[in-house]
Amino acid sequence: MCIFCKILNKEIPSTQVYEDDLFVVIMDIFPISRGHMLIVPKEHCENIFDLPEHIAKNIYPLAKKLSICVSKALGTDGINILQNNGEIAGQEVFHFHLHIIPRYKDEDIQISKPTRLKLEASEIEEIAQKIKNVI
Amino acid sequence: MCIFCKILNKEIPSTQVYEDDLFVVIMDIFPISRGHMLIVPKEHCENIFDLPEHIAKNIYPLAKKLSICVSKALGTDGINILQNNGEIAGQEVFHFHLHIIPRYKDEDIQISKPTRLKLEASEIEEIAQKIKNVI
Repeated sequence: MCIFCKILNKEIPSTQVYEDDLFVVIMDIFPISRGHMLIVPKEHCENIFDLPEHIAKNIYPLAKKLSICVSKALGTDGINILQNNGEIAGQEVFHFHLHIIPRYKDEDIQISKPTRLKLEASEIEEIAQKIKNVI
Repeated sequence: MCIFCKILNKEIPSTQVYEDDLFVVIMDIFPISRGHMLIVPKEHCENIFDLPEHIAKNIYPLAKKLSICVSKALGTDGINILQNNGEIAGQEVFHFHLHIIPRYKDEDIQISKPTRLKLEASEIEEIAQKIKNVI
């Protein structure tokens, strides 16, 4: 059983801030910032690729609700919503989860300004065409 | 008019990969990785705080669809889904958008492993309580 399933099963303790039929919201125990929360679906799925449709439909409305609440509660200056799929993307627990990461003016976090590639417009067009062929 | 509204209005060119009633998907012109796309709602809203409910409900199902397509098209090894709210969080265009950032084994990107805070469990509990009071 994965660590989040154990948390959902109350075999491992967590600091829970919210629960409904589909989701549990817990505090990240290694927070990137004050108020860093995780939205965890109760149903086990690994990542966005096997995310059930009803969970996909309801996760962003909940992310909005929590963003508003955490802003009011902690006086945040911004919020990153981050969801990692695959080890290379930084996923550490292989049970789908969405990070809500409050941001504050006095803190510099290496999250949202990574180096950009230098691609020609024609290269971007070529990549887009490959994606369009699959859609 | 904001730059994404101008793109939606065809006043500024873009490389579009998908369109439906609610969204347009375009290639990021300063990509973090090959295949970096943006899901842009057609209706102008600034960030997650004023995101209309029908857009919130439909964005993650679309992010899933595009993640599957870009994986097939480009053979990605992982995907980050990132959505920045506020200048401090790295938001540069103030029209809500969700980044789909493919990840590849041979590339190291500073996005998903930022430094973690060192907070005591009691401090996390205290923060959680403040959030719960607002929810």
